[in-house]
Amino acid sequence: MEVAILLFDDFETLDVYGPVEIFGLVTELYAARFYSLHGGLINNKAGLSILTEKLEMVPENLGIFLIPGGIGTRKEVDNQPLLDKIIQISTSSTFVLTVCTGSALLAKTGLLDGKNATSNKRALDWVMSNGPKVTWNKKARWVVDGKYYTSSGVSAGMDMVLGFLSDRHGIEMARQLAYKMEYHWMEDKDNDNFYSP
Amino acid sequence: MEVAILLFDDFETLDVYGPVEIFGLVTELYAARFYSLHGGLINNKAGLSILTEKLEMVPENLGIFLIPGGIGTRKEVDNQPLLDKIIQISTSSTFVLTVCTGSALLAKTGLLDGKNATSNKRALDWVMSNGPKVTWNKKARWVVDGKYYTSSGVSAGMDMVLGFLSDRHGIEMARQLAYKMEYHWMEDKDNDNFYSP
Repeated sequence: MEVAILLFDDFETLDVYGPVEIFGLVTELYAARFYSLHGGLINNKAGLSILTEKLEMVPENLGIFLIPGGIGTRKEVDNQPLLDKIIQISTSSTFVLTVCTGSALLAKTGLLDGKNATSNKRALDWVMSNGPKVTWNKKARWVVDGKYYTSSGVSAGMDMVLGFLSDRHGIEMARQLAYKMEYHWMEDKDNDNFYSP
Repeated sequence: MEVAILLFDDFETLDVYGPVEIFGLVTELYAARFYSLHGGLINNKAGLSILTEKLEMVPENLGIFLIPGGIGTRKEVDNQPLLDKIIQISTSSTFVLTVCTGSALLAKTGLLDGKNATSNKRALDWVMSNGPKVTWNKKARWVVDGKYYTSSGVSAGMDMVLGFLSDRHGIEMARQLAYKMEYHWMEDKDNDNFYSP
């Protein structure tokens, strides 16, 4: 199953590479590929330059569409051609996963209207302003609503991807992957320690 | 301060991008660059292709030399030209950090002889065979011995880099970075939950 990862300038490093690490442990099941609106090199503030394909090259009936966060989302929520592509790809893909402020991009399209979702706890006011009709869960580490998985900030994306794999393949498989990474998986999606009332 | 990251084919994704995420949060202090023995594109099983500079381009009096792990280390411990460069760069750099089985590469050079170090808990027998004169700590999440920082498996590299920044800039700065990432930092370097007697 292909994991199409949306990149844009000033994406957050770990939002992308945390999930890539995990899917990379099960390459017999999942293959990550990188896309951006126009293709070509995408850069971020950590000094990374990633070569991407154009979003229009994403296969129809995609398995997983992954939208990371990062400071770049502040600009991209006003990028209508990008939002149009997000609508098109998200509608036809089997699953859509967002990390951190990536949920603001998805919310801005309207696709999350009436659905449950979450995002980075420290950016939640801004994220919520991009999706006033979304039912925002402020307490969750990650939220599942049908085919939509949304997670809290940065490293919560890894917890969510392990949760996603747990939902599809069983919790023992997810625990094995966390063990392989010597990663302390926060298994409880409903209670994020970074939530403060 | 430059963070020179050694890459080789089949490096472990998160061993590299976990630290890159953290150093990328303090770009006013640290800048990551990627190197390999011969330069050019380096690939791993997760589907990543990274453009690198030649190791001979690493500046003299480097600040931080970071050696990741991954299945590729099994081959590289027998790559004498690479080991020679690791000796040269590690000797002249201010700090040397290894993640996971990256410590096997460093141990194989002899530079850790008589020093304390650790590595991935599940690969420790193989790692120890590459450094019989090293005092291996099987219980630690990460180990500091002078300028050498060695960590346990994969995500332990993030805990170690936060520990490194804590040592240099104070624990509050490191906690702030973990908070920004919504990352549950394992602050106790001496006790790794993944250790089993």
